[in-house]
Amino acid sequence: MRAVDLIVKKRDGQELTADEIRFFVTGYTHGEIPDYQASAWLMAVMLRGMTPRETAELTLAMAHSGQTLDLHDIAPLVVDKHSSGGVGDKVSLVIAPLAAASGLPIGKMSGRGLGFSGGTIDKLESIRGYRVNLSVDEFRAQLKQIGIVLSGQSVDLAPADGKLYALRDVTGTVPSLPLIASSIMSKKIAAGADAIVLDVKCGRGAFMQTVDDARALAQAMVGIGRDVGRKCVALISDMNQPLGCAVGNALEVKEAIATLHGQGPADFREHCLTASAHMLCLGHKADSVKAGEKLAAQLLDSGQAWDKFVALVRAQGGDVTMIENAELLPKARLVQDVPAPRGGYIAVMDAAEIGMTSVELGAGRAKKGDAIDYAVGLLVHAKVGDRVSAGEPLFTVHANDEGKLVPAEKRLLGAVEWSDKPVKPLPLFYGVVE
Amino acid sequence: MRAVDLIVKKRDGQELTADEIRFFVTGYTHGEIPDYQASAWLMAVMLRGMTPRETAELTLAMAHSGQTLDLHDIAPLVVDKHSSGGVGDKVSLVIAPLAAASGLPIGKMSGRGLGFSGGTIDKLESIRGYRVNLSVDEFRAQLKQIGIVLSGQSVDLAPADGKLYALRDVTGTVPSLPLIASSIMSKKIAAGADAIVLDVKCGRGAFMQTVDDARALAQAMVGIGRDVGRKCVALISDMNQPLGCAVGNALEVKEAIATLHGQGPADFREHCLTASAHMLCLGHKADSVKAGEKLAAQLLDSGQAWDKFVALVRAQGGDVTMIENAELLPKARLVQDVPAPRGGYIAVMDAAEIGMTSVELGAGRAKKGDAIDYAVGLLVHAKVGDRVSAGEPLFTVHANDEGKLVPAEKRLLGAVEWSDKPVKPLPLFYGVVE
Repeated sequence: MRAVDLIVKKRDGQELTADEIRFFVTGYTHGEIPDYQASAWLMAVMLRGMTPRETAELTLAMAHSGQTLDLHDIAPLVVDKHSSGGVGDKVSLVIAPLAAASGLPIGKMSGRGLGFSGGTIDKLESIRGYRVNLSVDEFRAQLKQIGIVLSGQSVDLAPADGKLYALRDVTGTVPSLPLIASSIMSKKIAAGADAIVLDVKCGRGAFMQTVDDARALAQAMVGIGRDVGRKCVALISDMNQPLGCAVGNALEVKEAIATLHGQGPADFREHCLTASAHMLCLGHKADSVKAGEKLAAQLLDSGQAWDKFVALVRAQGGDVTMIENAELLPKARLVQDVPAPRGGYIAVMDAAEIGMTSVELGAGRAKKGDAIDYAVGLLVHAKVGDRVSAGEPLFTVHANDEGKLVPAEKRLLGAVEWSDKPVKPLPLFYGVVE
Repeated sequence: MRAVDLIVKKRDGQELTADEIRFFVTGYTHGEIPDYQASAWLMAVMLRGMTPRETAELTLAMAHSGQTLDLHDIAPLVVDKHSSGGVGDKVSLVIAPLAAASGLPIGKMSGRGLGFSGGTIDKLESIRGYRVNLSVDEFRAQLKQIGIVLSGQSVDLAPADGKLYALRDVTGTVPSLPLIASSIMSKKIAAGADAIVLDVKCGRGAFMQTVDDARALAQAMVGIGRDVGRKCVALISDMNQPLGCAVGNALEVKEAIATLHGQGPADFREHCLTASAHMLCLGHKADSVKAGEKLAAQLLDSGQAWDKFVALVRAQGGDVTMIENAELLPKARLVQDVPAPRGGYIAVMDAAEIGMTSVELGAGRAKKGDAIDYAVGLLVHAKVGDRVSAGEPLFTVHANDEGKLVPAEKRLLGAVEWSDKPVKPLPLFYGVVE
């Protein structure tokens, strides 16, 4: 088998066999197939597409390109959750302990944030001492002991995906449905998931801009799951405006803590209840989404989810006093409200612009490896459809740099569009694919 | 400007500007743009195509990626000729001295053969002492003195093309019309041509298998010529069967010498007359193709073209006695006729199979850098449409290795298809694009 022949086959729109896909992925991972052949192949895949069968084979080939986790000795049924990333998306901080509190073992490896999408690991690191670099042995021991782990990647999961993703990033081959879907699914399968809740965001602050695109990605991922014997449910959720109020690491932890106490913003709580209801269903802790939502609300309101979060932070070395008294979390020096410049209905609250404002304040990374400031960020006080009076606080900026206040305020106000007539609120979800 | 943005633009089917194409070609030539970005871009070009304007800009960018030749102080109008390569294609050996004999200065840099396509330089090297590695100064001095040079590439013409071609070869991006057309044209433009006769072969022994494909390539190249201010005429010629009788280096030189004496196979002579007539027209030595053919025939039959060939060989250090007495050219030890196994009409005389037989005898290169045997090759004694009796010699094999005789004979007979009913001869040309 020669790499160039597989490039030609895909270039000409033919379907590759499982052997051919494995040959290509393995050869590339081991450096036997050079970058320049892989990138030509990726572009051919991007422009010619892949059949569902090819996409599933690619997923498996990438999932098995390195170490894999097998947690079945600890958790007979491993349920995982993936979000395609968004602004103010602190959902994992709530639903992981919630699901664990129901008795489902949750051992999750998460990534860092990039661009306007925050990362769960970054948020947790705003808790002093919280260790994200657990060894596999520590990961397994903790999962067995307390039933929950939220860590970084302790093993090099799906190294083929990492290598291919880095190449896609510089060769214009990122926005390919089979490549995106197989990339996400390969990591989840390598991490040992039997069932996965996929939160596919769409809108201004998401990779997928339209509901149709998000639905196509959701269908591709659920299809892969079906083809490789994993049960998947995909929620298509709104990311035109931020989720909840808080954007920025410590601010989001604080909001998650409130939600774990049965409080928090209504939209965020509802999102968490729906997403965890699907996890509880997949994990056989509830018979229906409705029953799952009811159970989830109980686990939040009774404090059981919160107790699990405390146990998690303690187990991973985090300073528990910081979460028991959220005022001890990193705090910005400058806190300033941004009043509404006029009255009216909020028509647009652009998640991407708001996310980028938070990045510019120092809460995120423009590029990989950038340092981040856990304290800074912002709060959003109004949602699309809300009626706001002139002078009411629309945002609160948390900054550590005087010079960044005015640009942040300007950018935030530019992210808002107004209407004199009532505007329909945005839905939280656009649909479920299963 | 970033390479990845230009990949994305082409991936999405948009037209690149002249600046963008220059940025990409220059960056790649200088190693600032890596192979893996260039190959993704090539695949995008391959699948999305290029507009005529883009193709012309790509040609110019490649033509100017290294040194260029300017011969206008010697030749006010530089006429060149390019063949897309074929089996038995020794046309340059005849029409270059013919055109030079008409007073058109011909300074030509040619390539070596690869696969079943022979190279002019290899053929000339079968004349002992013939130097193909002239310096630019020698090239210019000889062109001034005797009006003809047939040399290898003294300068690194269009290095971007060389680098991109090597990458295309291993990334499945060879068969792209704009890439093929710009590759050929960039070298001709770098070599200083003002007007070019393009001989686009089609059929079994050519890269382009069908007349339609050959016409499309011809149109693309003539279009580039128009867009960059060069006058081009493209002949679409047959390469289903070999041109002339001789295939193999010294054998082809011998056939060219016969043709330069007003003899030689009828099809080869006619091809040379037509092709040179177009050169004479482009060089303002004839008012019409018809007048050009008449002049060309005179130059052959009067011995003027032959005299120019002798002057050429002498000037480049070749042993003139070898061409004055062609029996002194390298000769194979074993010469064996292959008789017709049956009688009938020749329906197919597969140029590719015959070319590969010659390569296997040692006359060509399976891969770059292989040594070649100037003496070996074969003669083809019948053309498609000819009536042949059983036992008549169909081929004559010239070999230096006993063990290669039987396989060659077998392969040659396999290249022939027979008919009991009369078969129409193949045309020499399918059309002219200008």
